[in-house]
Amino acid sequence: MLPVNPDRFLADLHKLRSFGASGVGKGVVRRAFSDPDIESRKWLTEQYTGAGLTAQIDPVGTVWGLAEGKSLLIGSHSDTQPEGGWLDGALGVICGLELARAGAEAGLPVSAVSFQDEEGRFGVTTGSRIWGGFTSLEDADRLTDTDGVTFGEARARMADLTSDFPDPSRFKGFVECHIEQGPWLDKAGEAAGVVSSIVGIRDMRITFSGEQNHAGTTPMHLRKDAYQGMVAFQNLIAQRFRNLVTPSTVWTTGHVDLYPGSHSIVPGRCTFSMQWRDGEKPRLDRMEEVIREAAEEVAREKGLKLETSGMLSLDPVPMDDGFQAALARGAETIAPGRWRKMPSGALHDSTSVSAHMPVAMLFVPSINGISHAFEEDTREEDLVAGLQILAHAVAEIAA
Amino acid sequence: MLPVNPDRFLADLHKLRSFGASGVGKGVVRRAFSDPDIESRKWLTEQYTGAGLTAQIDPVGTVWGLAEGKSLLIGSHSDTQPEGGWLDGALGVICGLELARAGAEAGLPVSAVSFQDEEGRFGVTTGSRIWGGFTSLEDADRLTDTDGVTFGEARARMADLTSDFPDPSRFKGFVECHIEQGPWLDKAGEAAGVVSSIVGIRDMRITFSGEQNHAGTTPMHLRKDAYQGMVAFQNLIAQRFRNLVTPSTVWTTGHVDLYPGSHSIVPGRCTFSMQWRDGEKPRLDRMEEVIREAAEEVAREKGLKLETSGMLSLDPVPMDDGFQAALARGAETIAPGRWRKMPSGALHDSTSVSAHMPVAMLFVPSINGISHAFEEDTREEDLVAGLQILAHAVAEIAA
Repeated sequence: MLPVNPDRFLADLHKLRSFGASGVGKGVVRRAFSDPDIESRKWLTEQYTGAGLTAQIDPVGTVWGLAEGKSLLIGSHSDTQPEGGWLDGALGVICGLELARAGAEAGLPVSAVSFQDEEGRFGVTTGSRIWGGFTSLEDADRLTDTDGVTFGEARARMADLTSDFPDPSRFKGFVECHIEQGPWLDKAGEAAGVVSSIVGIRDMRITFSGEQNHAGTTPMHLRKDAYQGMVAFQNLIAQRFRNLVTPSTVWTTGHVDLYPGSHSIVPGRCTFSMQWRDGEKPRLDRMEEVIREAAEEVAREKGLKLETSGMLSLDPVPMDDGFQAALARGAETIAPGRWRKMPSGALHDSTSVSAHMPVAMLFVPSINGISHAFEEDTREEDLVAGLQILAHAVAEIAA
Repeated sequence: MLPVNPDRFLADLHKLRSFGASGVGKGVVRRAFSDPDIESRKWLTEQYTGAGLTAQIDPVGTVWGLAEGKSLLIGSHSDTQPEGGWLDGALGVICGLELARAGAEAGLPVSAVSFQDEEGRFGVTTGSRIWGGFTSLEDADRLTDTDGVTFGEARARMADLTSDFPDPSRFKGFVECHIEQGPWLDKAGEAAGVVSSIVGIRDMRITFSGEQNHAGTTPMHLRKDAYQGMVAFQNLIAQRFRNLVTPSTVWTTGHVDLYPGSHSIVPGRCTFSMQWRDGEKPRLDRMEEVIREAAEEVAREKGLKLETSGMLSLDPVPMDDGFQAALARGAETIAPGRWRKMPSGALHDSTSVSAHMPVAMLFVPSINGISHAFEEDTREEDLVAGLQILAHAVAEIAA
């Protein structure tokens, strides 16, 4: 186990929280490229330098603390949602800092990182996706936030601080610690989750078109009601998913648009979002079949026209077996019987980084499963346990 | 039967269409207080005068053609939707004109009317509701259209043409002819519908509030998904309505608002409209019980919070029995076996007028049930049959 210092680690975690502290509980407002974000990144370069690393900010604002030679990379992201929690990615960033310091003391090469804009002011995991080669810098520069600011304009705010992207080949792997952002560990009273895979996502829009009609004079049996098509579709998939899904499979409709949207008009058009996530690609594919079949069936039966949008499709990302085994041994040492293997239902920077090297993730519990909110928190003993599990695993992996 | 002249009637109907003709099929754009509307109302006063009536425009722009003594009032409205059909209320207005002319020839006192803003630029059946005493002129003047123009400002455009409201006591009753705006008569190949009642309406908003959560990390069994609450509610009421409704009962959800409305967030709040219509008050009341019980049941089972808005409640308006009988005899004479008694699923000016006197309505078929659209139409033989049925009934009623 690397010689980590829990007090120093907690102190740094609270120090990072002070950049953009919301004044509501432990909440933080530190969006990518905001003043608190830029200040926190300057502070981080000083800490990396103090840990004996070579600090470097790449062209998109990701902060790197580079150890000599081939090293293990540890970190996450320190930008937050518009109303964010104090841990989220910040926990993984400070774990990286503390493990790099402990690695330096133990003579093991550990580098650290805080990726930029994981929370998606301009996209999703923007900083790591550019480094992972999924998006070119040129394309990224044209992305806009909800106020119309471009990524190019935003990163120009840090231009005086930046130099090059580090070469991915200098790292032997990446380990990311993150809060679970879900309820499983907290409900079970467990200390940690060794992530088996980051779930894949399918996301599309479905549109039923029928006949817009007077809600008083059009009898029920002659209606082609696009909204009722959506209701029938939800019933069909809920029924057909029963023998197909696992307890960690999820599906969500979070957006609905009815046209024309009047109390007194039978809706002629209903567009709604359909998103589903699972750790296994074959299950994602099978769910897609169920969804497309159900939508076609409803359209046929109710005389509606069916249109589907292009589909966002991110396949599940498996975590490295060797890294997982090392994390599992660490977890069993620090919290015997109080940890589990589990998929990650959320996207993380690890997805992007997996393009270049083996990756692994460790989750600590989220109290009541809450994240992306000022109330987000984790018990201090669980934060420290997470650090110690990493200290065990990294000692093995980085050796 | 009054000596009506079908050719003159059809010619006038086409003349009225020319005010605001859209150039698309027979469509008309003649919103209340628009230039074409005001021009058409001037034209109408000339026709009323030519028919031997005393023409008068009241303070809200409703045009009256008044016969001497106690008379039967016949008419409807000549304003249209933003994209309207040529018949809608215009048919009833020209029926009123032709029947007043025929009444004058036969020595029977028949008055005629075209109400203002039935289509709801400023409300619903605004002109007749003011005359019916449901809304004061003072309150109405503060109503605004979607562009922010007040009713007071709009009616000032006609101020040089207007005088007083006529005294309702000079009329012995009101008969309104209108297109069905639904598919029943057209589908059955029938010529006319004698309206039994104008259906009552209940209209409210229902809100389920649950927990806004991450759509990737929140497992299905721990979600409090406000959208899924709405889906469950729709299933429950559809099932429970089965033994309660008649073929002419309708219910509609035409508006849905999900919060926050993101693909990746389990919706924390879902507000949707719920409107139902039926000709019988007890059935409307029983449906309300089913709706409220189902919403409470879903909220309880899914751990959601339930809120309901205030409810708009318009009771059914029965048509006068004697007038109905006269219309039925007229229908059986002109179109033997090819007419029916039926409720009106839409509101009409007759609802407002019923505050003052007995009312009745006659429907003619709408081709494919279409109205409030440029495609709206009715076969010429059915238009003439409607006029002749009225000519029979009015000869009885006005005598």
